[in-house]
Amino acid sequence: MEYLEQLGQKASAAKYELQKLTEEDKNRGLAAAADALVRQTERILAANREDYQTAQAGGMSAALLDRLQLTPERVAAMAEGLKQIIALPDPVGEVMEHFDRPNGLHIDKVRVPMGVIGIIYEARPNVTADAFGLCFKTGNAVILKGGRDAAHSNEAITQIIRESLLAEQINPDAVQLITDNDRAVTTAFMQLKQYVDLLIPRGGAGLIRAVVENSTIPVIETGTGNCHIYVDEDADLDRAIPIILNAKTQRIGVCNACESLLVHERIAARFLPALGEALREKHVQVRGDETVRRMIPDAVAATEEDYGTEYLDYIVSMKTVGSVEEAIAHINRYNTKHSDAILTQNAEHAEQFLQGVDSACVYVNASTRFTDGFEFGFGAEIGISTQKLHARGPMGLRELTTYKYLIRGDGQIRA
Amino acid sequence: MEYLEQLGQKASAAKYELQKLTEEDKNRGLAAAADALVRQTERILAANREDYQTAQAGGMSAALLDRLQLTPERVAAMAEGLKQIIALPDPVGEVMEHFDRPNGLHIDKVRVPMGVIGIIYEARPNVTADAFGLCFKTGNAVILKGGRDAAHSNEAITQIIRESLLAEQINPDAVQLITDNDRAVTTAFMQLKQYVDLLIPRGGAGLIRAVVENSTIPVIETGTGNCHIYVDEDADLDRAIPIILNAKTQRIGVCNACESLLVHERIAARFLPALGEALREKHVQVRGDETVRRMIPDAVAATEEDYGTEYLDYIVSMKTVGSVEEAIAHINRYNTKHSDAILTQNAEHAEQFLQGVDSACVYVNASTRFTDGFEFGFGAEIGISTQKLHARGPMGLRELTTYKYLIRGDGQIRA
Repeated sequence: MEYLEQLGQKASAAKYELQKLTEEDKNRGLAAAADALVRQTERILAANREDYQTAQAGGMSAALLDRLQLTPERVAAMAEGLKQIIALPDPVGEVMEHFDRPNGLHIDKVRVPMGVIGIIYEARPNVTADAFGLCFKTGNAVILKGGRDAAHSNEAITQIIRESLLAEQINPDAVQLITDNDRAVTTAFMQLKQYVDLLIPRGGAGLIRAVVENSTIPVIETGTGNCHIYVDEDADLDRAIPIILNAKTQRIGVCNACESLLVHERIAARFLPALGEALREKHVQVRGDETVRRMIPDAVAATEEDYGTEYLDYIVSMKTVGSVEEAIAHINRYNTKHSDAILTQNAEHAEQFLQGVDSACVYVNASTRFTDGFEFGFGAEIGISTQKLHARGPMGLRELTTYKYLIRGDGQIRA
Repeated sequence: MEYLEQLGQKASAAKYELQKLTEEDKNRGLAAAADALVRQTERILAANREDYQTAQAGGMSAALLDRLQLTPERVAAMAEGLKQIIALPDPVGEVMEHFDRPNGLHIDKVRVPMGVIGIIYEARPNVTADAFGLCFKTGNAVILKGGRDAAHSNEAITQIIRESLLAEQINPDAVQLITDNDRAVTTAFMQLKQYVDLLIPRGGAGLIRAVVENSTIPVIETGTGNCHIYVDEDADLDRAIPIILNAKTQRIGVCNACESLLVHERIAARFLPALGEALREKHVQVRGDETVRRMIPDAVAATEEDYGTEYLDYIVSMKTVGSVEEAIAHINRYNTKHSDAILTQNAEHAEQFLQGVDSACVYVNASTRFTDGFEFGFGAEIGISTQKLHARGPMGLRELTTYKYLIRGDGQIRA
């Protein structure tokens, strides 16, 4: 596709300029973009109204319309996001390791930008500014493919950022938006391997699957979270309920929310009735095994499929287990390698769980909701990786970089 | 495919056992495997003779037959390779970072095995032992798919290793070999995403392309090297020729061999005749631009395609350039992001080149042949990564691991 080829070439040319920018240059660009977004709020809102009206006429659900809609406050929050990135240290240029070899070669392992990053996302226009900010601060050019429903909003935001970079004498191809919304173009984008070093899908499980299946570019899978909490026989039961309610209901539709509970059978009779009551008050439906249904009368039967489901809804699956080993085995079978927790006062069980559960983030006595770039102290995040290659868990600025080896010699040849 | 499903399930069961092994356990397993390989040399050689005779009858080239053939010395070298891995420190369990959060959460970033690694390789039976050793030391289960031409050799080696692990009470599914050589099985293996965390192809450009295009498992691309040496106007010309000869001819068929030379036009008249003479003595054909052909009369004309070719042969492409910038631009256009070098006494040019060239390993005044796990001090390598995700350049033990976050709290919930 010639159109994508052109975008790729422009991004490729831009990446060599971006990697030479100093941290000050980059912060100047981010500040200019933040100011321009606020100054041109009305232009963004006008574009967003177009998207909103089309989506509304097309019967988009209220929840999705809410994600699509921009307000002056939401535009201000986008700009604020860029300003927060200014405050974060630039990871590029860090000497990660140094070794002097016996033959006199001096090897530096130095952190460098990836080059060109592609982001494919759904109808959330705030991702446009957010992804630009994180990629730009790390010296990467970014090519964005947003959801068709937010096309006008994304175009306005991208244009404003590009204009503000240009005014600062920075190559505006630091951020480009794919405006052709044909599905074949998106698929071809996933194969633009010659120009794109890394592809990050941000969105639901369907989008991520499509990218994994079609991409020839290295992908980082993000954001699917079938997160578990296991309440051990040695848990502090008074503290267990607040943690579970927080993990399940503090924010329902997020990837680090708890979707499944495991409870040791020895405490089932003591614990489940109170837990059921607490979940009922929060309007959470319980789908459980036989023991669970005996203790929580309004619980419905859980199927095999329930244990593998990320509900993102007021539903939780629940199962009783006979040991920490059984809990670990169940979690490793059904989880999405995102975040899982044990509640226990037993140090040995805690260690067993920490070592045995195969997840990016494994918790003892805390809510799974902490799996988040801000909560980890990274200051920002591009997503939560659920794969094992390159980055796991919250991905901040560092995870958008790679490294290269710089080797200085004085005539060394290999014997 | 039910066959692959079974292999996947066995590897998956084994990985949880392997990640619990101590370094001593793993070293014991490696030592047992090394001893068994030597003790059962005759069994391996008998299997290898079968492969060799079939391949010879099928008209395999002498070079490939040489790679396929095992001798008592080569079997001993395989065992020696495993013993060297024993001596390397186990990277698993390393606390890479620790942060205490203001809310009292204690976060450890800990190095852990990947889980299950798939290796697809060609008819080099030594890779079988080698890949097992590196994956086993890092607590990973490995599923191997070797070339059909080495099927009997690979099966004998794998069986011997499995028997030796079993005798040490270690799960032999630490290493499994796909013995069905149907191409459809190999393609299905590339999509065994549910069980395999990482796929590494080891072989020629065709194999690597096939894996990248078909795999849904995260892949690390290895080993394609169109490596450049740029001789700057400020190079020490006396030292330049030994470096170039080493990089080009010390070993012809390897990925870190030099395939293309760039020479600053200002030194062309002084340098090229002597370089041409030195290459002629080593029987290297030069394919160059007009200036090159004027200075090296037996050089033939280089085409656009030549500049993008990894010859792995006694051929080198050569081009004159007007500046270090032009050299960098040419290299970034044609290289495979493997290894590139500048020869110069000019510190500014050296820095420009180090920063500007987009390669895993960028050299000043040294041969590209040093891009190698042993030469870097890693002690061993599974391959040289030419992609940017996860690992770049020589991949040692650490690069076969990932990390997870262990988060210890005392009841924290998110506000």
